[in-house]
Amino acid sequence: MSCRFTYNDRVQFSDTDMAGIVHFSNFYRYMERAEHAFFRSLGLSIWEDPALIPDAERVGWPRVNATCDFRAPLHFQDEFEVELLVEEVRAKTIRWLIRIWRADGELSAEGHMIIACVQRDPETGKMRAVHIPERIHSKISTAPPELLRKPVKN
Amino acid sequence: MSCRFTYNDRVQFSDTDMAGIVHFSNFYRYMERAEHAFFRSLGLSIWEDPALIPDAERVGWPRVNATCDFRAPLHFQDEFEVELLVEEVRAKTIRWLIRIWRADGELSAEGHMIIACVQRDPETGKMRAVHIPERIHSKISTAPPELLRKPVKN
Amino acid sequence: MSCRFTYNDRVQFSDTDMAGIVHFSNFYRYMERAEHAFFRSLGLSIWEDPALIPDAERVGWPRVNATCDFRAPLHFQDEFEVELLVEEVRAKTIRWLIRIWRADGELSAEGHMIIACVQRDPETGKMRAVHIPERIHSKISTAPPELLRKPVKN
Amino acid sequence: MSCRFTYNDRVQFSDTDMAGIVHFSNFYRYMERAEHAFFRSLGLSIWEDPALIPDAERVGWPRVNATCDFRAPLHFQDEFEVELLVEEVRAKTIRWLIRIWRADGELSAEGHMIIACVQRDPETGKMRAVHIPERIHSKISTAPPELLRKPVKN
Repeated sequence: MSCRFTYNDRVQFSDTDMAGIVHFSNFYRYMERAEHAFFRSLGLSIWEDPALIPDAERVGWPRVNATCDFRAPLHFQDEFEVELLVEEVRAKTIRWLIRIWRADGELSAEGHMIIACVQRDPETGKMRAVHIPERIHSKISTAPPELLRKPVKN
Repeated sequence: MSCRFTYNDRVQFSDTDMAGIVHFSNFYRYMERAEHAFFRSLGLSIWEDPALIPDAERVGWPRVNATCDFRAPLHFQDEFEVELLVEEVRAKTIRWLIRIWRADGELSAEGHMIIACVQRDPETGKMRAVHIPERIHSKISTAPPELLRKPVKN
Repeated sequence: MSCRFTYNDRVQFSDTDMAGIVHFSNFYRYMERAEHAFFRSLGLSIWEDPALIPDAERVGWPRVNATCDFRAPLHFQDEFEVELLVEEVRAKTIRWLIRIWRADGELSAEGHMIIACVQRDPETGKMRAVHIPERIHSKISTAPPELLRKPVKN
Repeated sequence: MSCRFTYNDRVQFSDTDMAGIVHFSNFYRYMERAEHAFFRSLGLSIWEDPALIPDAERVGWPRVNATCDFRAPLHFQDEFEVELLVEEVRAKTIRWLIRIWRADGELSAEGHMIIACVQRDPETGKMRAVHIPERIHSKISTAPPELLRKPVKN
């Protein structure tokens, strides 16, 4: 059972814009990288391989909402840490609290993503929300309030 | 005085991901494109040219927050319309309500962006929030409640 | 039969990097956009819809090689034209000559892309090069030498 | 003196496109990441900090040409190695030979980039090619022919 994960990376030149800082849209990509690395760390994959998981059990994870407060910019070559916390696990959705920390300890951004567990309906071909499978649900737990409460690097 | 703007574009192949739909991070880029086109439509530029505007008057517009609800996917080659509404103009910030509409009339995404008007402090070199200059403020007005209220394409 | 196509677009903020110009990787995306718009202009799609084209006839177009000479930068909000010329059509590949022109008439970039016509082998599941279908081949012709010869805007 | 560098990374979800593989434009970004990591490994930076290097000595490195042969696709979560080789160092330009290797040892892509050493002309404000400064030139040497000759992973 895991409720927190950290992912480390470095700002690439192509992540910056003419204002000399990381383009705000890339913060959402950094958040997603941390989520995917978290899944890998649990022996899972956000994208389930049809060769490993039967079609009737394969699930996907589209984003329902993503929000981000931008606090302090990131610059080219900066190292940063993405801190992913499990804010809430419901029957069919997960809500992450995500903080992006600069190497100097300053909070660069803080946001949330809600992702839904979906399967393709074999009749309509459309995606519909389904219960999170036990093989995934059993590995993820909600973070304790003291971790969620305030953005203090630990 | 303008409170609403629409921007039309088409999904490019490089906007999609392996799920076969537009990657969620690109919705924020579509929002930003509409904002920048809105500024151009008012004879303004989100990025002010130092050759045209004296340094003491030049302002920039970093994002303070951006949020998006994802409702229905966009696919390769889909045409879409970004509807930008002025939700609130304060002394130093603007809040947009932004809806992304598919050609079939379905709402693809709805979000908000708060941008702050900033100048570089000549002493510290840091950005600080300043009053929106009259030359910009005078051209933008808050949208009427009936436009903001509900996502019905008009 | 068509041998030349032009596509017009504008530089977006997120296309720029901290050097204040369009990041070089985006020139390849601009080239691809022109190619896809060319296919649309011919009533074709670079991505064939399984609902319209039977699996046994559907083809895809991976890139074999792409090269670009960078001549003059593009900046934020610049309008540009991508000129796509059919340099060579072979049995299983097409080679484009692509020029990106600035609004001031200066050549910003010139490159080539070779794309291969492929189908998924039903047995191995791997892509293999196939003859370009007549429904596509019949619409595309090699540009005359005077158009290919030198980068002079016409 | 260094003539070869390797950079390791993993394919992110947002690097893929609807064909289920890494979008070709991202290979150029992977190449650039390796180049920038090579500079860092030498105690250099592709982007020189004005606080550390006087304006009269600061140089930049725009791309003159970039080409890539695409051999075998990369997929989501694949680990890959970018092998950067110094193919030629001239007075004002460097030419890299770059190979992108999959974890299974297969060559995914092979390309070249030519970068020019430039400075901003204080009078015209335009970039012009200049001699590579000794502090950089002294750290980079051409790779021996046996490394450049053929794409065999060592």
